[in-house]
Amino acid sequence: MIDYQGTIEAIYNNLKQAPEKGIVASYIPELSKQSSDRFGIHIQHIDGRTFQIGDWNVPFSIQSISKVLALSKAIAFEDNLIWKRMDVEPSGNPFNHLSLLELENGIPRNPLINAGALVVSDILISHLKHPKEDFLNYVRNITGDDTISYNLDVAASEQRTGYRNHAAANLLKSFDNLNNDVDVVLDFYFHQCALEMNCAQLSKAFYLFANKGKCFNDKQHISSSQAKRINAIMLTCGFYDEAGEFAFEVGLPGKSGVGGGIVALLPNDFVISTWAPGLNAKGNSLLGMQALEQFTTRTNRSIF
Amino acid sequence: MIDYQGTIEAIYNNLKQAPEKGIVASYIPELSKQSSDRFGIHIQHIDGRTFQIGDWNVPFSIQSISKVLALSKAIAFEDNLIWKRMDVEPSGNPFNHLSLLELENGIPRNPLINAGALVVSDILISHLKHPKEDFLNYVRNITGDDTISYNLDVAASEQRTGYRNHAAANLLKSFDNLNNDVDVVLDFYFHQCALEMNCAQLSKAFYLFANKGKCFNDKQHISSSQAKRINAIMLTCGFYDEAGEFAFEVGLPGKSGVGGGIVALLPNDFVISTWAPGLNAKGNSLLGMQALEQFTTRTNRSIF
Amino acid sequence: MIDYQGTIEAIYNNLKQAPEKGIVASYIPELSKQSSDRFGIHIQHIDGRTFQIGDWNVPFSIQSISKVLALSKAIAFEDNLIWKRMDVEPSGNPFNHLSLLELENGIPRNPLINAGALVVSDILISHLKHPKEDFLNYVRNITGDDTISYNLDVAASEQRTGYRNHAAANLLKSFDNLNNDVDVVLDFYFHQCALEMNCAQLSKAFYLFANKGKCFNDKQHISSSQAKRINAIMLTCGFYDEAGEFAFEVGLPGKSGVGGGIVALLPNDFVISTWAPGLNAKGNSLLGMQALEQFTTRTNRSIF
Amino acid sequence: MIDYQGTIEAIYNNLKQAPEKGIVASYIPELSKQSSDRFGIHIQHIDGRTFQIGDWNVPFSIQSISKVLALSKAIAFEDNLIWKRMDVEPSGNPFNHLSLLELENGIPRNPLINAGALVVSDILISHLKHPKEDFLNYVRNITGDDTISYNLDVAASEQRTGYRNHAAANLLKSFDNLNNDVDVVLDFYFHQCALEMNCAQLSKAFYLFANKGKCFNDKQHISSSQAKRINAIMLTCGFYDEAGEFAFEVGLPGKSGVGGGIVALLPNDFVISTWAPGLNAKGNSLLGMQALEQFTTRTNRSIF
Repeated sequence: MIDYQGTIEAIYNNLKQAPEKGIVASYIPELSKQSSDRFGIHIQHIDGRTFQIGDWNVPFSIQSISKVLALSKAIAFEDNLIWKRMDVEPSGNPFNHLSLLELENGIPRNPLINAGALVVSDILISHLKHPKEDFLNYVRNITGDDTISYNLDVAASEQRTGYRNHAAANLLKSFDNLNNDVDVVLDFYFHQCALEMNCAQLSKAFYLFANKGKCFNDKQHISSSQAKRINAIMLTCGFYDEAGEFAFEVGLPGKSGVGGGIVALLPNDFVISTWAPGLNAKGNSLLGMQALEQFTTRTNRSIF
Repeated sequence: MIDYQGTIEAIYNNLKQAPEKGIVASYIPELSKQSSDRFGIHIQHIDGRTFQIGDWNVPFSIQSISKVLALSKAIAFEDNLIWKRMDVEPSGNPFNHLSLLELENGIPRNPLINAGALVVSDILISHLKHPKEDFLNYVRNITGDDTISYNLDVAASEQRTGYRNHAAANLLKSFDNLNNDVDVVLDFYFHQCALEMNCAQLSKAFYLFANKGKCFNDKQHISSSQAKRINAIMLTCGFYDEAGEFAFEVGLPGKSGVGGGIVALLPNDFVISTWAPGLNAKGNSLLGMQALEQFTTRTNRSIF
Repeated sequence: MIDYQGTIEAIYNNLKQAPEKGIVASYIPELSKQSSDRFGIHIQHIDGRTFQIGDWNVPFSIQSISKVLALSKAIAFEDNLIWKRMDVEPSGNPFNHLSLLELENGIPRNPLINAGALVVSDILISHLKHPKEDFLNYVRNITGDDTISYNLDVAASEQRTGYRNHAAANLLKSFDNLNNDVDVVLDFYFHQCALEMNCAQLSKAFYLFANKGKCFNDKQHISSSQAKRINAIMLTCGFYDEAGEFAFEVGLPGKSGVGGGIVALLPNDFVISTWAPGLNAKGNSLLGMQALEQFTTRTNRSIF
Repeated sequence: MIDYQGTIEAIYNNLKQAPEKGIVASYIPELSKQSSDRFGIHIQHIDGRTFQIGDWNVPFSIQSISKVLALSKAIAFEDNLIWKRMDVEPSGNPFNHLSLLELENGIPRNPLINAGALVVSDILISHLKHPKEDFLNYVRNITGDDTISYNLDVAASEQRTGYRNHAAANLLKSFDNLNNDVDVVLDFYFHQCALEMNCAQLSKAFYLFANKGKCFNDKQHISSSQAKRINAIMLTCGFYDEAGEFAFEVGLPGKSGVGGGIVALLPNDFVISTWAPGLNAKGNSLLGMQALEQFTTRTNRSIF
């Protein structure tokens, strides 16, 4: 019997005193306001139990973690049709995402890099009547929590300064891989990334991926097979060019965000979320990565 | 003594019947209206004589040829300072201009690829009080011809559909290599490319590069050394990934545009302009390239 | 209770009649002699049971599958020290392996692409007294089968015509990432790839990865943690640029070879090997990929 | 009337005292023995006059400069047929020559990068009965100097340590772009690069390119048109990724070598050779580049 609470407490106490806590992202002014001392861990077991410590109930900007939620909704709409417009291969490239997009004729490598997530946004916009409202409702629904919202300051901040995303969207459009207007797609995308959630909400939102597609309140949102495939994509593509490293060191499907959040899961077992705003050189939460590595080492639980 | 008129007549009559005339550019609706039967040649000798045949006096969209004129104005303002923001090396890359820009941290390879020309636009905007009007006046001035104008339909058409240029401008901005707003830079750039001129006007406009920086009406717009350097850039970078081929087959500094125009020059000797809207696979005028190759072969004149 | 035998029989009978069986590799003359009608499946359960059908006991050239066995021996010698000389990230690149190697200063992306496997060869040569003999003995040892041998004709054939591997080895040497002579490393590497095994032997050889590092005869060759990490590398890097696809469709760590073999495993559960010489466009066994996809779908077993 | 002697004396005296003289190449042990204080300039005018100063008569390893001589012989044999096996475009790439070769299916960008020069070597081997002897005789012949020889120590040194060239040759072979054995091609290539000449001999050897294909002793080795094309290739491709810079700053066709030599020419006018072993960051002679830039500025002579 694994002592989840004891384990995360030990890890928390250990890492809380780490001299090196990484650098808080500053390219979005709103994100830079967070203190690198923030640190929370939350586990949502498949059987309903929860374990938590630290700042587990403080909301933060989930940023790229939202890409998995958007992907699940797009797959619910179109199933495997979406793979005509993007691939499922790791990008494997530390530096030049636009280059790969250009070399490969506007087909993003996978749905978890920005270019792929923009295509996912485009798909959702084509299916949803009120895209931003409807997507927010989906997230509230799978989490069972109506307090979740977009942070409009963060969305506006990215709208103004996200030149690289503007570049990616225009490049996709030049390859005819966006059906909606560039500005409409970017507006949706910046809102999606600006979702604010705490660790507990994040664990609940990802419950369906650990539970064969059924969310927390037992509703089947995607099929068991779709859940497995999203887990496979998280494992191979969830951590930018550190995906192999995460699979190697942690061994769980997961996704990180530049706001300092990470969520990972063991199918049929648990979801674990961490939040620590300081990032490592690859843009993933420094303490979060260490916490998850220690967690799978101490509990000896991983998919491998 | 070279028989310029006889030579261009022979070339014109020869190529006019060519079975293969290339493909008229269609990505800008306005350009696609031209007939591939259009064909004109014009020579402006440094001593004042002119020679012409065919559609030499029909205006067309000069497109990328405008980049050399913009560059000359930017060099007049900032001289070698502009090379802090772009390089003078051939791009040597047939397919992925944005990739190179990304790999090289937002420093365009040279001022004659789109990314470099956008930086040149940015420089002009920073120096000119009424950028579009003032640049047009500069072109009218060096050509001694006030009838030259922008084609506003072409500019508007590129504004709406030039996604790849929007992508390049946003990417440059993300690397802090544009000082003005992305939209302002693109608006200027699309106007500049939408200049309409005929072969005779083009020959006159490039007279200053063959004449040590002095234009047709004897005004010194750039220094002799600046003119030489612009010629060097035209030779190494003027024809996209066919620059080496053009130097090899023709052996003159020059610049082509997707509207089917080409202008080339022998320093201290002559400027030659051709117009034939059908393009070869690399985006350069098919008949124009052949005409210039035949011209330098028949007259045995080249810089080599 | 899963009916392993019934499942592989159903899959075998189904695929045996497939109209499209892929193309047998011809770049090594010896490999091209195989018939694309060959097809075998073998399962080695962790509890000792085996299930098999078709050509499961016909030896074939395991080629790149040998890279995992060599990696396990290198990790046994040096543990994490080997990661100073190569990375654990997917190559994510369909076409230009040498390009990536050059861009990244001679550090191969992972140990399962050719360049990485050459570094692994170099490590083994530095540790083994009689490298080729000792490595063969290791494979015989973990498999409990002394009949396994190198096919010397295949090794000689690759030695003569493997120009791309010669290029990779020389490039690694130019970056000081080979300690031994280029020719010595290539000789070892070509022998390693020329190992001949049948499906049953392959399943037994990979038993240790499904069994926390303990091989078939209960000897601990690598630690439990090392076995997990090798599984992670197989999942993210085992199928060239189809790795994401395999994780997505099959969901098991595995490795393919150009000889038509594939081996995959579910930790603490089973190893499954397939052999069918016809390859798909990405160089992986066409029937093998389909067999494994059908197997995990029918049994609903995968790591996700 | 240009004072050639006075000009090179002024430049020599000026640069001789430069505090920064670049770094002598050390990757070939033999080359590293040269002192960075060596400096010589030699001009061979088309009318027979010569001007010289400093170490103009000290032999040095011409290295890559030999590529132009080999190219001229290959063109004499096959004329434009050679362009089926390589291109004439600048490589435009500072770092990854093998990458481009791989991306472009084994067709080198131009004959003056290593990969292209290896293809030229392959062509010469196919045509010459005794390749090394016959090529040496060609160089002696166009120079009118039988004392020119290979430095066998330099050739042997490159043979042992030129891993990157071994990689390039094997990669070319893998694309079927070498007809002869890899080892035979490399042996010829390393000898060709190991030619030793002084500035005066170099000027004489390149006389034919400034003189419409006729060498010093009035023999027509290549046609006037072939000479022009080789000049065009030198201008666009002669200085690695500093080719654009050289055209921009100097404005003459030329070629540099890692031994510190540079030769440049003004068609129908003169050949100028410099030697100074210290290299700049791009691998071209530091003082040589400065000397040529000052020379064309002071004399106001360039092709532009």
